[in-house]
Amino acid sequence: MATALKHPSSPPAGEVIGALALFDGLDAAAISRLVAAAQLRHAPKGQMLHLQDDPADYFYVIVQGWVKLFRETLEGTEAIIDVLTNGHLFGENAVFENDCYSCAAEAIEDTTLISLPTSLLKSMIESHNQLALNMLSSMSRHRLQQHREIEHLNVQNAPQRIGCFLLRLCKPDQAAPVTLHLPYDKTLIASRLGMKPETFSRALAKLKEQTGIRIVGPTVYIDRLQTLVSYTCNHCSTSFPCDDLG
Amino acid sequence: MATALKHPSSPPAGEVIGALALFDGLDAAAISRLVAAAQLRHAPKGQMLHLQDDPADYFYVIVQGWVKLFRETLEGTEAIIDVLTNGHLFGENAVFENDCYSCAAEAIEDTTLISLPTSLLKSMIESHNQLALNMLSSMSRHRLQQHREIEHLNVQNAPQRIGCFLLRLCKPDQAAPVTLHLPYDKTLIASRLGMKPETFSRALAKLKEQTGIRIVGPTVYIDRLQTLVSYTCNHCSTSFPCDDLG
Repeated sequence: MATALKHPSSPPAGEVIGALALFDGLDAAAISRLVAAAQLRHAPKGQMLHLQDDPADYFYVIVQGWVKLFRETLEGTEAIIDVLTNGHLFGENAVFENDCYSCAAEAIEDTTLISLPTSLLKSMIESHNQLALNMLSSMSRHRLQQHREIEHLNVQNAPQRIGCFLLRLCKPDQAAPVTLHLPYDKTLIASRLGMKPETFSRALAKLKEQTGIRIVGPTVYIDRLQTLVSYTCNHCSTSFPCDDLG
Repeated sequence: MATALKHPSSPPAGEVIGALALFDGLDAAAISRLVAAAQLRHAPKGQMLHLQDDPADYFYVIVQGWVKLFRETLEGTEAIIDVLTNGHLFGENAVFENDCYSCAAEAIEDTTLISLPTSLLKSMIESHNQLALNMLSSMSRHRLQQHREIEHLNVQNAPQRIGCFLLRLCKPDQAAPVTLHLPYDKTLIASRLGMKPETFSRALAKLKEQTGIRIVGPTVYIDRLQTLVSYTCNHCSTSFPCDDLG
């Protein structure tokens, strides 16, 4: 299942790793060590990537696809922590959590990932202060995003909260029309946003009606990005594009 | 309002700063720099400590009292992000957020704090890798706590979620009976837990009935800690004391 990419310049691992904000400002030797340790993996839809409380040997970058992070409750139900897509990282926090994963991770679409050893990340954070600083910035943006979501529960209606989820998937410099690929199972997005499936369906219908977005299977077409931005971001204290991405 | 503490050994700044997990493993010279820059402040109930988007000159450690963090929405309503008490820090993330506060902070009881310059934190994070690592651990615990809270929305009822909030204020080595001091205005705790005030009141009544805790004004008496732990933590995937504190 896993293919090792042994040479620093091997695409796509080199390109993907070089483009990550987490590794900004690292010298070429450090990037080479990461790229040399990177493995390209393909996970078919439904494959578990790791379980909660498993020893964390690897962390992952999503090249293409969708992954859900969840915690399994004692009753065996799932609490969705996040749904992630291209360019997102997961598992890297395990280096600060007794080297175990705090969530389980499952591919919810056919997914291509790059895995990197957490042991390498751990030793490099200790020896490269820049990497520690980048990781702090990344965690801080994540925290800011969670604060905004708490604010949104007060000021945004359900269609706007779905709009916000979609806008976070758009690249700021992307010209309209924008095409996004969601997971087939949209109830996972509903869970991520803390909505019941029926609330989510009604809200999505209203969002389509208000902003002209079109949804065909897992694909979302945003013909008029500015209309979606106006509808969604009007009541938020921040403007599009958000500064808490990445 | 502020009193400078100029000597490294001045209590309580020295003791409070030395006891913080954030500064674990720093050498005596580094701790001395922090203590020399520390100022003891007293904020009466209702005083704003900083506004959202203000330039962040200081971060704070609560010595005694309660502080709410909130975001003001465009409509002027408040979204409560957190309510913090003794030993908690706030404002330190501003160094990764363009040196501005992402939340407003207000003393909700008469509060004693230590303020430290964010500029000093910023320069020390860059020169002391141990401080960067401590800060990463702290943010990571915070993230883990948020993941647990998402899990709790699925598996805990409202009285259990209040029980969890109370248990997080207990020191693990504290012998029963435990006495805790809450803010007078308990609707702030309701907001923090995402509950409507009437839900919170009913849930608190049920928690008292089920666990024998007593509440007199702002004071909570926990005569049988184990009863509260059994009632609260039964459906959570972690046991008391939580490993995401600090």
